[in-house]
Formats: sequence, structure tokens, C-alpha cells
Amino acid sequence: MTAPLHEAHPSGPGPGLPNTQQGMRRRNLARVMHTVSAEGPLSRAAVAARIGLTRAAVSTLVDELIRAGLLEELGPERPGRVGRPGSALAVSGRGPAGIGAEIGVDHLAVYAVDLRGAVRARAVRQGTNRGRPPQPVLAELTALVEQVVARAEREGLRPTGLAVAVPGLVARDARTVVRAPNLDWHDLDLGPLLPTGLPLTVDNEANFGSLAELWLGENTPRDFLHVSAEIGIGGAVVVDGRLLRGTRGFAGELGHVPVRPEGPRCACGGRGCLEQYAGEEAVLRAAGLTPGEDHVELLAERAAQGDRDVRRALRGAGTALGIALTGAVNLLDPETVVLGGALVALAPWLLPSLERELARRTAGPPCAVAVSRLGSEGPLLGAAHSVVRAVLDDPATVSVAGQA
Amino acid sequence: MTAPLHEAHPSGPGPGLPNTQQGMRRRNLARVMHTVSAEGPLSRAAVAARIGLTRAAVSTLVDELIRAGLLEELGPERPGRVGRPGSALAVSGRGPAGIGAEIGVDHLAVYAVDLRGAVRARAVRQGTNRGRPPQPVLAELTALVEQVVARAEREGLRPTGLAVAVPGLVARDARTVVRAPNLDWHDLDLGPLLPTGLPLTVDNEANFGSLAELWLGENTPRDFLHVSAEIGIGGAVVVDGRLLRGTRGFAGELGHVPVRPEGPRCACGGRGCLEQYAGEEAVLRAAGLTPGEDHVELLAERAAQGDRDVRRALRGAGTALGIALTGAVNLLDPETVVLGGALVALAPWLLPSLERELARRTAGPPCAVAVSRLGSEGPLLGAAHSVVRAVLDDPATVSVAGQA
Repeated sequence: MTAPLHEAHPSGPGPGLPNTQQGMRRRNLARVMHTVSAEGPLSRAAVAARIGLTRAAVSTLVDELIRAGLLEELGPERPGRVGRPGSALAVSGRGPAGIGAEIGVDHLAVYAVDLRGAVRARAVRQGTNRGRPPQPVLAELTALVEQVVARAEREGLRPTGLAVAVPGLVARDARTVVRAPNLDWHDLDLGPLLPTGLPLTVDNEANFGSLAELWLGENTPRDFLHVSAEIGIGGAVVVDGRLLRGTRGFAGELGHVPVRPEGPRCACGGRGCLEQYAGEEAVLRAAGLTPGEDHVELLAERAAQGDRDVRRALRGAGTALGIALTGAVNLLDPETVVLGGALVALAPWLLPSLERELARRTAGPPCAVAVSRLGSEGPLLGAAHSVVRAVLDDPATVSVAGQA
Repeated sequence: MTAPLHEAHPSGPGPGLPNTQQGMRRRNLARVMHTVSAEGPLSRAAVAARIGLTRAAVSTLVDELIRAGLLEELGPERPGRVGRPGSALAVSGRGPAGIGAEIGVDHLAVYAVDLRGAVRARAVRQGTNRGRPPQPVLAELTALVEQVVARAEREGLRPTGLAVAVPGLVARDARTVVRAPNLDWHDLDLGPLLPTGLPLTVDNEANFGSLAELWLGENTPRDFLHVSAEIGIGGAVVVDGRLLRGTRGFAGELGHVPVRPEGPRCACGGRGCLEQYAGEEAVLRAAGLTPGEDHVELLAERAAQGDRDVRRALRGAGTALGIALTGAVNLLDPETVVLGGALVALAPWLLPSLERELARRTAGPPCAVAVSRLGSEGPLLGAAHSVVRAVLDDPATVSVAGQA
């Protein structure tokens, strides 16, 4: 292929010329994909202008991406332009797809998302996973993944990877669940238990939720703290557009920040952790309700009806969140705190006390608190999109596979 | 000059060829300086081998750096080698120097550090700055800087910049002290008040302390949380070898993390902040002592003598630090917590309760806690070295100035 004239993100010196050219080709394929994905439909000439390559170089790259099923031509552009009419390029809606899965405490869910970001197939099973051994849960999840993969394939999609969101700490190998207290799972490699044939990535649900916020949210800043909840409280720290992972992969554990150090004992071994005040069980208990399914819906419904106990319980949770977030905001100085997951539905009753606490404990203007528009779908969308973004970031891996 | 064959860290595409060559030359000058600084004395051939440039290219760069006074030749290498005997290169001990200054609550200090990292001149003035208006304090500091600059110049050094550590929050302009509660300074641009003629950078003392740890510490990991104390408690977060600054430049504010949310009122507006338990005043009060000068020395002395009240007060401070650090470690998952500043002298009596609290509140192996070997000099060394590192990172700015 023609060597590009400019090179935006070259890597270090390769061991030899073939390697360097190969690397440059891969990066240029990625630049074409990202440009069409962000701004398409675009003509080849427009792509060339945007990324600063010659039209000939871009055509070679585009042809390869079309052959691999990653781009498609929408037909001739509208007339009235000078020169040979070009064909507008768009990201393919029938190429590779990302499979995202979520192991919730009370549900399993699987989505297939295409390169355009559309959800093309989904499967959900309600029912608690708490206290169940991992094997049957993961066998069910495998079956759901297979259903979604089959449906996606019927639509002409090619699933290229599986990303699984779990409510717990995941090791940096992106496979091992080190600790998921609300499932009671420990040191569990999910790989052998999810024999789907797809490359597997496992991550904490709050991490995937924060990535969804970053990729799909509206005006999401590049420095924010993401707080979500299902049964536990999850957190994720995004700095300069990148997820902060920590040494062991455990960064963002907001649920076990001490709120009242002499408070009630927590399963983590500590006392007075945030989850003891703002976790779902604590809130239900404080509201005088007994845990069942759809607790969040129940709490939101009762709060909307004006139930005083529920409102008081949610106020208390907001206060505890405000105290824990004061510490986090002091440490990280993010632009925004984004509430996601189950907190979205409860935000009207949590936010006033949360914001009051944050304001009175921080000097100067307090950090802004925003409510995610993705809601409880965040982690699942983040998981599926992480697979899709891996394809956009290095289309060569898929295009080679697609041509083989 | 000869264009290098390889390029390790190229920037993005420049607007034209001259710019690109200029940028490459600057980066190559930096690579030579860093290589000699880290591994010198080295021959030209050894430098060329290490950075993957031709000997001719390296010689051109080295000649420029020698002319600018950044490198010097130590004389011919030991014989017995094949080929023309080379002259070993070392970083100059008479070239540019960094001036670091510290505005402490109870002292002012200024150091000059040469490119080799040696402290070559210093001036210190003891005496409280608390409650004094900024103008006379900064006039005194200006005079100390001028003394140190004059002494450095007498030794053949050329000070190229001034970096000032302050016990407070500094805006991202690296000049404005937004809030230094223990000095009672607010929204103060230090630029006009420090008319030294040197380019000025102002930063929080804990930030400079953490950079000193990163650059000068022994086996400092690339992910750590730095905690220091003078009167207040300072913190700094280093992620992947880079200081986390936050949106406004305020990241690392550990002193106002809530420890006991219903605890004593703090000057920041909050309640039960860490400083209310582990700040110097709080510890002195808890020990039944009255604030005076050299409090840290006094506390350490009394604790060493077995004073029960002092030991109990330091145990309490360690517990509060452990609670605040539990939250921070949960959020950041650092490899190590490094205690610096005044905490170094008090570590023997703080550490047991701090580590116990951290261990019992975190599941799994607790985060390691290390004690800085730099002690209270950390911020001052970090400030001076930040100027020196700016020269190593872009020698062209200095060498052009040096040649003018």
C-alpha cells in the first residue's frame, strides 16, 4: 500500500521496516474507522482531507475495510459536486459486533451491539443469583450469550468478543473475579466457565458503566467520578478520559470508604462503610421494607407516593453518599460526579441531601453532581461497546480474521 | 545537523518540515541529556548505542550541549579500548541550576540544585509566617532567593527558574495561591510579589514532595499516595509516574477528608476532617501541649522519652490517618502509601495505629505504608528538581539562551 505522508500517533521504532509499515497500516485503518464512525457518512475525499492522507492511500485502506465488512458504501453522493461522484462511506451495520453481558445480583443480561453502536439483540433473565454457586449461573449466562450470538448472526453480524460486567473486584488479568461479596464469589476465573468461543474480558460493572458514560454520555467531561449502585455501591474514576485502574485493578471502590468509622460492621471487615448507609439493603432496612425483587422500583414508587419512611431512608443514604464523596472529591478534584445505575431512579430523593452535604463540607464552589442518562443499562452498554471500540481501535485484527 | 535514523517519541505532524526537524532536534538533545544524567559518565559512542542514533548525530548534539554548558568532558577514557580514545561525558556541575523555595507556616527556605542534583547553595529563615500579610513574607523570600542566586552564580551556575512550594491549594496557572488556610492567604498571585527575574512556578508542597519521592526516592513505585504534614495534612496522588492534578489543580487534598462526619468543626467549613485529628494543632492539643515553634521536634522528643499523653495523641492521629487512608486506598488502589514531611519524624508512634486501622478496614492484604527517606526536605528538593528536570526535558530552551 501507499505510505501515508503524515502520521499522527506513531509508535516507537520498530525492529525493522516491515513491522513499521505494518504498524502504520494498522493505525491508518483505525483512523479511517474512527473518522467515519464519528462523522460519517463521508466520501473518500472527505476522509482523506480529515486525516491528512492522500486520496489514493485512503482508497486502499477503505477498500480493505469494505472487503472486511467494516465499512459499506451507501451509493453515489448527491450530484452537483465537482469531479467524479464519490460514494458515501458508513460504518457497516452488518459487520463485527460486540457482545456485552452483565452478571447482576438479581439478573443476567446480554446485548449485541453493532459497529454503529445500535443494540441489535438482547436477552435478559430475571431472578436472584445471590448465594448460588457460580457454575449454574455461568452456564445460564453462556446459554444467553449463545442465544444473542445466534440472533446477531441471523442479522448478518459477526460477534468478535464478549465483555462481562460483574458486581465485584476483578484482577488485572481481566478474567478473575477476586471478590464479589453480594454474589459470594471469590477468586474465580470466569474463562473456563464461559465456553462461548469468543475472546473474553471481565471487568467491574462500575468500570464499564463509567466507560459507557465517557463514550455515550452527553457532554461527559474527561475527569469525573462515576458512582453507581445495584445491591452494593460501585465507583469508577476517570482521569483525562482514561479509567484509573489501580495497582491490582481495584481502584474506584467507593462502597467501602468509611463514612462513620465506629458504625455498623460491614462484610468487608470494616465498620461504617458507605454501603452500610447507602447500599440497597441498608436503605430498605432504614425504610422498614424487606428485601425482595425490584427493590429499586419499589423504593422509587414509594418515594414518589410520598412515603415518609422511604424518603427519610433515601435522605440518609444521600447524606452518607455526600460524606463519602466529599473525601473522594477532595482527593481527585473531578469536574463532575456522575450518578449511574440504580441511583438514577432514586436521584430525586438522594440528590438534595447529597448535594447539601458536599456543599457544606467543601470550601469554594462544590463539585457538580450529574445524573446519568444511561441509567441501569450503563454497565451492559459499556461492556458491549468496549468490544466494538477494540475493533475501531485496531480494525486490522478483525479484517484479517474476516478475510481468512 | 544530521537527521537521526530513529525517533523514539515523535510528536504529532508539525505544520512543516522545519518545525518537525526542530522538534526532533530538541527531543534528541533531551534524550542525550537524560541518558548521560541517568547513566553517565559515558562516551559519545556509548550514548549513541543507548539511544539508537549514529555517532555522528550524537557528536553534533553533544557539541551543542557542551557549548551551552549542559555537558562537560571529563578527559580521555581509560586506554585499552579499540579505536580512538573517547572522552567521557558528564552532566555539567557548572551549568544551569534550579532554585527551589518553600513557604512554610514556620519558616522560609531556598535551595539551589545543579543539573547533577546536588544542593549547591541554601538559605533558611526560621520564624512564623502565620497571620502575616503576604507582602513582607514574599519580600523576605525574594531576598533569600537573591542570596542563593548570587551564591550559585559565584560557583559558576546559571539559575534558570524558581519553583515555590506553598502549604495550600494552587490554581492550574501554577502561580495563584487559591487558599492557604494556615497562612490565611487567599486568591493571591505570587508572580508580582516575587520579582526575582526568574520564570516562576508555584505548586502545593505535597505535590512537590511527591515529585521528589518519585525522582529521588529509593524504589518508589509509579503508583503511590503521598501523605505529608507540616501544620496541615497534605496529600498527592501519583498514577503511572504522573502527578494527578485534578480539574482545578486541587487533587490530593487529604487533610479535609471527613474522618468522623459529626466531629469538630474545621476551618474549611466541614466537620471532623482529618486535620482535626492528625493536624499538628490537634495533636498538640490532644497531648496537652501548647503550640510553639519546633512542635514536631518537641512531639518526637517527648514520644521518645515515653510521654504517655504524647504517645496517646500520636496513636489517635495514626488512627485518624488510617481511617482517611482506607477511603483513599479504596478509591485509588495505589501500590504504596508514602509518609513524608513532619510525619517522618513521628512515624514510629503513628505507624502502628495507622497500619492496624488500614488492615482491619480493608479486605485482602492491606496497602503497604512506607516512610520517606527525604523527610521534611522533600517539597524543597522537589521544587528545585522540577526546574532541573525541565532543563533535562528540553535542553534546547536553555542552550539557545546560553548561546545568546
